[in-house]
Amino acid sequence: MKLRSAVWKTLGNEKREGKLSRVVNAALVTLIATNVLAVILGTVHSVELRFGRLLYAFEVFSVAAFTIEYLLRLWACAEDVRYNRAFVGRLRYAITPMAIIDLAAIAPFYFAGFGGLDLRYLRALRLMRIVAVLKVGRYMHALHVVKSVLHVKREELLLTGAVMGLLLIIASAVMYQVEHEAQPEQFPDIPSTMWWAVATLTTVGYGDVYPVTTAGRIVTAAVAILGIGFFALPTGILGAGFIEEIQRTKAQRRCPHCGELIDQ
Amino acid sequence: MKLRSAVWKTLGNEKREGKLSRVVNAALVTLIATNVLAVILGTVHSVELRFGRLLYAFEVFSVAAFTIEYLLRLWACAEDVRYNRAFVGRLRYAITPMAIIDLAAIAPFYFAGFGGLDLRYLRALRLMRIVAVLKVGRYMHALHVVKSVLHVKREELLLTGAVMGLLLIIASAVMYQVEHEAQPEQFPDIPSTMWWAVATLTTVGYGDVYPVTTAGRIVTAAVAILGIGFFALPTGILGAGFIEEIQRTKAQRRCPHCGELIDQ
Amino acid sequence: MKLRSAVWKTLGNEKREGKLSRVVNAALVTLIATNVLAVILGTVHSVELRFGRLLYAFEVFSVAAFTIEYLLRLWACAEDVRYNRAFVGRLRYAITPMAIIDLAAIAPFYFAGFGGLDLRYLRALRLMRIVAVLKVGRYMHALHVVKSVLHVKREELLLTGAVMGLLLIIASAVMYQVEHEAQPEQFPDIPSTMWWAVATLTTVGYGDVYPVTTAGRIVTAAVAILGIGFFALPTGILGAGFIEEIQRTKAQRRCPHCGELIDQ
Amino acid sequence: MKLRSAVWKTLGNEKREGKLSRVVNAALVTLIATNVLAVILGTVHSVELRFGRLLYAFEVFSVAAFTIEYLLRLWACAEDVRYNRAFVGRLRYAITPMAIIDLAAIAPFYFAGFGGLDLRYLRALRLMRIVAVLKVGRYMHALHVVKSVLHVKREELLLTGAVMGLLLIIASAVMYQVEHEAQPEQFPDIPSTMWWAVATLTTVGYGDVYPVTTAGRIVTAAVAILGIGFFALPTGILGAGFIEEIQRTKAQRRCPHCGELIDQ
Repeated sequence: MKLRSAVWKTLGNEKREGKLSRVVNAALVTLIATNVLAVILGTVHSVELRFGRLLYAFEVFSVAAFTIEYLLRLWACAEDVRYNRAFVGRLRYAITPMAIIDLAAIAPFYFAGFGGLDLRYLRALRLMRIVAVLKVGRYMHALHVVKSVLHVKREELLLTGAVMGLLLIIASAVMYQVEHEAQPEQFPDIPSTMWWAVATLTTVGYGDVYPVTTAGRIVTAAVAILGIGFFALPTGILGAGFIEEIQRTKAQRRCPHCGELIDQ
Repeated sequence: MKLRSAVWKTLGNEKREGKLSRVVNAALVTLIATNVLAVILGTVHSVELRFGRLLYAFEVFSVAAFTIEYLLRLWACAEDVRYNRAFVGRLRYAITPMAIIDLAAIAPFYFAGFGGLDLRYLRALRLMRIVAVLKVGRYMHALHVVKSVLHVKREELLLTGAVMGLLLIIASAVMYQVEHEAQPEQFPDIPSTMWWAVATLTTVGYGDVYPVTTAGRIVTAAVAILGIGFFALPTGILGAGFIEEIQRTKAQRRCPHCGELIDQ
Repeated sequence: MKLRSAVWKTLGNEKREGKLSRVVNAALVTLIATNVLAVILGTVHSVELRFGRLLYAFEVFSVAAFTIEYLLRLWACAEDVRYNRAFVGRLRYAITPMAIIDLAAIAPFYFAGFGGLDLRYLRALRLMRIVAVLKVGRYMHALHVVKSVLHVKREELLLTGAVMGLLLIIASAVMYQVEHEAQPEQFPDIPSTMWWAVATLTTVGYGDVYPVTTAGRIVTAAVAILGIGFFALPTGILGAGFIEEIQRTKAQRRCPHCGELIDQ
Repeated sequence: MKLRSAVWKTLGNEKREGKLSRVVNAALVTLIATNVLAVILGTVHSVELRFGRLLYAFEVFSVAAFTIEYLLRLWACAEDVRYNRAFVGRLRYAITPMAIIDLAAIAPFYFAGFGGLDLRYLRALRLMRIVAVLKVGRYMHALHVVKSVLHVKREELLLTGAVMGLLLIIASAVMYQVEHEAQPEQFPDIPSTMWWAVATLTTVGYGDVYPVTTAGRIVTAAVAILGIGFFALPTGILGAGFIEEIQRTKAQRRCPHCGELIDQ
């Protein structure tokens, strides 16, 4: 099983120590990025007309490469202590998020469309492999900091989100009351009014729906000003989180062997 | 009065220690959420046509449940030391914000509309009971931090709000002067011009009202750039507040009995 | 000169210790607020039609009161050590910003319009007296903190503003190049294109001017994303300023006599 | 070579110690600013009609002055230890960013247009010389702080940008799927849909492209709310950076000779 071990080290090794592993992973990431670009350009009518056949050929080649990669991973994953049982282990690997994304990127090609939706776009999710590559190297620390802050502050952020949701419902109910009669087309019911509430709270303000009555404008002013709070609160929370993280990091030291942080 | 005590412990107990209390409260919160959803969906014409009678039946059931709950609370509140006098105590309970919201959620059903407004939407306020439920459990700390920061920084935030209000008035008066002649329909008077000022200061920018003269555009540019300050100031204030809170919390310890923070 | 001293203590005393001083100042602030409200409502056509004469009478009364107040201040200011010379001292008082605003609030009434502009709106500036009143009392500390932070960070904020101005010019010049031919009406020259640049950099986005060419959209995307930086930079600067201020305040103590902060 | 040394000290000396150097540099910056203003005003049709010849004369004068300045710099740069070899040194100077900008500001005048683009606008980049002047004097510290924070936090900021780019692609692909059929004109292909994604993520929201289907509105709501995160994350990162910078600066002292910071 020397070959299987070599394949796993090349493809699945998260440390990516070997030179071959780096080359293979760089090639894969390049292929993913090119393929996503091809899918995006393929939707442009003029490009499709001129390069349609070329794009299809590249599509077949990419899916073939991704399929081989997926099968190799599924075969070689048994090398890993977490998945080292012939069937149960491989099944456990197959249901990891990364493996599901890998499958989702190739499956639509074989089953051709599903419910009218072109699932090839799921392939864009594979771009996250780029993030996985960034994990190794200089961006690891930054990624670690951002993830850690989001994790520590998840309760405050969720609470802000929940209050925002509550405000969205109350604002929509009030707005429906005051604007429905003046603009029955724009504010036909509460769910439709939520569209206005989202555009106002996030300060996007497309301008397709806006109040015309004085009462409606006063409600909008209140919602827009509260909308500022929904920029200020998460920003303040995250800002404090980043500072805490910095102070916590200073009170730690790095392991001289793996470079990871150790609490003292 | 054993029954009354049990009812109060189940309904009004803010610690929610008993299993029965948790089940009853979860059921009530679910009923509130479902009822709000029903009221929202009831405004959609197609839903009303098909499920109108079902929604009305659910409405009657909900209001009945809320009425029983309200009366039980009013009866059992005498168990609490704060409200333990037959009439005066119950009156004192009835005028707490939570009790007023509870009453507002059921009263409109009995008095059917009032001044053309459908007051059923007040029921959305009962969703705040969800926040009350969150108080217990893991979100208590996050809620405590956010409330504490908003409380400590209330003066800075109010001041920012007051300056924003002042700027809104001055900007509207200036804008009315420079744009009224060019666009008498869009800027007919100062109160109407405030609508433009709010949309610009909060950077929502619907696009229903905007200046066309050079002077008006220069005023708008100044207001929009100052608008950035009205994001930056509260955000900076809240950010500093969250950091202060963290440092204050570190200098405190938790009471081993109730889990609340004690200053040292 | 006992009367003059009493008038100065009542009107001009910034500490506002006496009861009479508080009553007079509260009355003045109320009159200013009511007058500004009257001027604002006076621009509404329907209000003007029905209450025009009442509003004019109130206008005459207000200006009379403000004129008496201004003359009293000018007469009594000689009590102050800074202005205690018969003519030069009073002139020095008359050119303080507050005195100029006070004069600007009444002068337009006597000289009736000037160059087509209704200068009565300058009166809105007198609302700043409300801020002056806030100075005394509980908001003094918050005002002090915000002013101090803005002062300490003025260089960073000005620099951000300068870079924003530079970006505005460059973005407008580039945008004019790429969009002028496609939309000569919307982007006729660089100064007009700056209107688009302001609306985009501040993320207001009214939607009256937007690019239609691919090149123009790419430039807009770059400007809008840089626009986020112009929220993030001043916010970060102010946030750090507020924290510094808190830490600096902790290392200070308050004078037991005047309540002001003293560096140690 | 005394003259060459004097020229270099006057033009290229970054410390700008001599009085003559300050005068010459102030004159150059004024000429750059005036020239940029003239180019901007020259695009306005009515100004061009009336002052066209004057503007052209000023253009010729400015370019002549800039050309003399450029040649003098190129000749005198050999005084600097970095460029003190007759040809190679001067070439090395010519490829510094500042020298390229200087050349780009004059070259278009001689080669008259290039590929339909009026390259005179590149001259706006010379405005950066104003920043170079600001380097000396009181803004040096602020510039140093902002640059240092952006440098220290570059990885976190780049990561945020990368995630934003990823989200932009995924959001566009999803949006194209759900809105293409309902609005084939507005969402013809994925690259065009990216225009909507940028306008929504940055909360600019011009209102030229917006969803009309329920699915599209739900996707938009998700993207707009995530857009808030793209204000909050960099703001939090920069805020923490500014605080770190302040703390780092406190642990340093200034060199008594050059005023630069020294780590202790």
